[in-house]
Amino acid sequence: MTEPTAIAAGAADRRPRRRPPSAAAAAPVVDRSRSYRHLTNPFEPLRVFSDDQVAAIHEAALQILETQGMRVLLPEAREVYRRGGASVDESTLVVRLDRGLVAQSLATTPRDLVLHGRTRDRDMPVHGRHVVFAPTSGPPNIMDTVRGKRAGTFEDYCNIIKLCQNHEVIHVLGGCVEPQDMPVQFRHLETTRAMLNLSDKIPLVFARGPGQNADNFEMLRIAYGLTHEEFISRPYTSTIINTNSPLQLDIPMANGIMDYAAAGQVSIITPFTLAGAMAPVTIAGALTLAHAEALAGLTLAQIVRAGAPIIYGSFTSNVDMKSGSPAFGTPEYTKAAIGAGQLARHIGVPWRSSNATASNSPDAQAAYESQMSLWGALMGGCNFVLHAAGWLEGGLTTSYEKFMIDLEMLQMFAETFQPVGATAEDLAKDAIAEVGAGGHFFGCAHTMARYRTAFYAPLVSDWQNFGQWADSGAKTATDRAATLWQQSLERYVPPERDPAISEQLDDFVARRTAAGGAPPVS
Amino acid sequence: MTEPTAIAAGAADRRPRRRPPSAAAAAPVVDRSRSYRHLTNPFEPLRVFSDDQVAAIHEAALQILETQGMRVLLPEAREVYRRGGASVDESTLVVRLDRGLVAQSLATTPRDLVLHGRTRDRDMPVHGRHVVFAPTSGPPNIMDTVRGKRAGTFEDYCNIIKLCQNHEVIHVLGGCVEPQDMPVQFRHLETTRAMLNLSDKIPLVFARGPGQNADNFEMLRIAYGLTHEEFISRPYTSTIINTNSPLQLDIPMANGIMDYAAAGQVSIITPFTLAGAMAPVTIAGALTLAHAEALAGLTLAQIVRAGAPIIYGSFTSNVDMKSGSPAFGTPEYTKAAIGAGQLARHIGVPWRSSNATASNSPDAQAAYESQMSLWGALMGGCNFVLHAAGWLEGGLTTSYEKFMIDLEMLQMFAETFQPVGATAEDLAKDAIAEVGAGGHFFGCAHTMARYRTAFYAPLVSDWQNFGQWADSGAKTATDRAATLWQQSLERYVPPERDPAISEQLDDFVARRTAAGGAPPVS
Repeated sequence: MTEPTAIAAGAADRRPRRRPPSAAAAAPVVDRSRSYRHLTNPFEPLRVFSDDQVAAIHEAALQILETQGMRVLLPEAREVYRRGGASVDESTLVVRLDRGLVAQSLATTPRDLVLHGRTRDRDMPVHGRHVVFAPTSGPPNIMDTVRGKRAGTFEDYCNIIKLCQNHEVIHVLGGCVEPQDMPVQFRHLETTRAMLNLSDKIPLVFARGPGQNADNFEMLRIAYGLTHEEFISRPYTSTIINTNSPLQLDIPMANGIMDYAAAGQVSIITPFTLAGAMAPVTIAGALTLAHAEALAGLTLAQIVRAGAPIIYGSFTSNVDMKSGSPAFGTPEYTKAAIGAGQLARHIGVPWRSSNATASNSPDAQAAYESQMSLWGALMGGCNFVLHAAGWLEGGLTTSYEKFMIDLEMLQMFAETFQPVGATAEDLAKDAIAEVGAGGHFFGCAHTMARYRTAFYAPLVSDWQNFGQWADSGAKTATDRAATLWQQSLERYVPPERDPAISEQLDDFVARRTAAGGAPPVS
Repeated sequence: MTEPTAIAAGAADRRPRRRPPSAAAAAPVVDRSRSYRHLTNPFEPLRVFSDDQVAAIHEAALQILETQGMRVLLPEAREVYRRGGASVDESTLVVRLDRGLVAQSLATTPRDLVLHGRTRDRDMPVHGRHVVFAPTSGPPNIMDTVRGKRAGTFEDYCNIIKLCQNHEVIHVLGGCVEPQDMPVQFRHLETTRAMLNLSDKIPLVFARGPGQNADNFEMLRIAYGLTHEEFISRPYTSTIINTNSPLQLDIPMANGIMDYAAAGQVSIITPFTLAGAMAPVTIAGALTLAHAEALAGLTLAQIVRAGAPIIYGSFTSNVDMKSGSPAFGTPEYTKAAIGAGQLARHIGVPWRSSNATASNSPDAQAAYESQMSLWGALMGGCNFVLHAAGWLEGGLTTSYEKFMIDLEMLQMFAETFQPVGATAEDLAKDAIAEVGAGGHFFGCAHTMARYRTAFYAPLVSDWQNFGQWADSGAKTATDRAATLWQQSLERYVPPERDPAISEQLDDFVARRTAAGGAPPVS
């Protein structure tokens, strides 16, 4: 068998037609999913900056915080900063941080973060070489190839949570799509209850004001059967904190940092810096701004509670300078991700990145932009990938088909992380001697002992030959993904739950609903 | 502006609607293509093996060559091996190489290979951090979304060469598709003439017997206006040599190694090892086998002519163990590519890899499998990427649409290779101070000075918002690629040619055609 380049002129298809030994056909597909539950990345992180350049960006961010500061809209947050030693100008709402305060805050920020699950095998280390995948969070819209694009509903929200539960490569949950059919003052109660009922994975919830934060914490405490003291002693959940770039921290986000720090829960502090729009047009400039903002948020958390768990979030991309449209999964995005990873390691804080694309369709563009995002994140040494599955249209839509395509890509990374065996048996000298020149390896003992588990079996990819593929409908990857998410939902089974806890949760939700819920703060 | 996760419940699309300053709309799109002409990869290569493991694979390959040897079908090649000091068994056709002979061959193989173009700015270094992209070579079929899949024609061949000429990120040419409407004894004459007439980039030709090899060399010599001595003094072209794994070297391939070595031209020696079929089921085993075969081919070249230019080719993937179908762009493929790069660096020979997919359609699967291939190659430190654009269906088809999608991906890598500026101006402290908290960067001086060239402008990707995208036909990336290849062909302009040289080439082709051409050897 030869590469097609060496096919003699006019030769026909020379792909192997022999099938493996008949045992192979009968063998069950090996479930590799358990090996995706905890991932570690064996690759040395890529770098786009020298150590000196990383230090220069950190220094520039410190100078920005000292001289220019952050505008902080929440009075209580300014008061906390003041108490911590920052200089606060109440007339401009600007908080300036000296480098000593930032250094002290970095010193108390935990390096070795672990998100705690309901059971120990759901604990998720988020540091060092550990990698955690979380689904897309926050899109207002939902899309599938059956029903098209539409406003997200609670049913869609629950469906995406079920898909997260079904597939081991998704490690924690998220705000998979906004259930716009649910009133905003009750939405957090219903979505958090749905996460706790439909999955045994770790929830990620939104910080939309102190009332919702308190409700979410209480529901988690009930679901995990913890006392208040137990709950605040370890991280059980996380939230996304976006600064309002440039250099502004708004009210719900400041509340979020403070509430999560006080409760010992994780703030993923993520400046959303689009180079050329809300951030400098240069990647290094956008990262400098983002770094300053992340340090300001981290400092607020540490003043509230020294040791508060933090993930350093980065979300730096660029706009299309012709239209102003945001772009994702671009070369600039990839390099910014790698650079952000260097900054996170420089300050010794776990790092969050994303799987993003600007595509409006779960097509080839969506796939290659997502790949550019994922490689930038993962070869940059990322610990926590938000939006790892389902993100489409610059984050305005969650796509069922994209969710399945992303699962395939995430599983391929999970497999790429597995070590390549290189024992004497792996080098296969005996098998090569046994098979001999011009032979084949299908039936040899070395193959027979390994073929069931040797290779990744794909989820979405179709490896049939063209004729078989055409005969089975000439389906694209997107078509196949549409079948797969429907099949996955059909086989969903809820995790085991203690009825007493479910009842307590239901009581809590009923009580809070009767009391009017908690409208989001803005 | 915030990440979608932080959109207050129910909030609408908050993407920026402001457009950049009006000058931006009027400014010409900056042609970045010149910066794609010579690429260097700034990233430290990834590793899947320890140094000890690499040494163990090399040692195992040496032992295989010493004890088991290669079956060499061409008597003249066995004679060359014998003359070089190998042990030859004429009854079994097996050639055994001792490690001294292999070491001596490695010592004379050039590390710093340069492919020479017709002009100096078309010279292509193929070593160190240099990266060269070559189109898909050899598929018997062609496909586009207008006409479907069909046997390749000479018109298709010429079209793909024109696309290669139009796009700077393709650095050298290849056997883009088999022109099956052209008789096999004349095919090399017509395809080589087409490459020389339609493009000024470096040709890659097939080695299909001594007659065709001699014709191809003569046509190159004529086109470049060289004496025979000048031609054989430097590499002007390359060819693909596939061993017949396991451990067999067939007649045209042995002829190719010998003819190319004698002429000082480049053999890209590429064992095509599918783990579980023609190679051991383990990645390390498949690489061990491939390494042995590559060393055997390299040794033949060096015996013919010490200093003969060689590229170490790798093409290790796996089969689907359920069906026996070959798979590409799998996690195993990616890791095998990275491992092959380590082996190439271990022996100090430039390294070739590929951009491959098993998808039957230029869809999301094609994109993510190609990305897995390309990242494995490029983060593995590859110097020469064959099949970089156009490959589909496991190499059985060249796709016009996939060609354009691949161009986009290659350009994104070319941009990712550009350094991230990190001067004080790049860090943008002054711009951040000027814009202030809550401001925007569209109009500031720092942005105005840079926005025209700040970011990559995509080829296939569509970054319009959903409404604009839907209004313009809701086209997928594949749909857009179909428009793009047709537009690119419309604007093709042939390179300037010396009419006297064209006449000499035509005379040569006419003379050789009248003499019956040169049928391929098999």
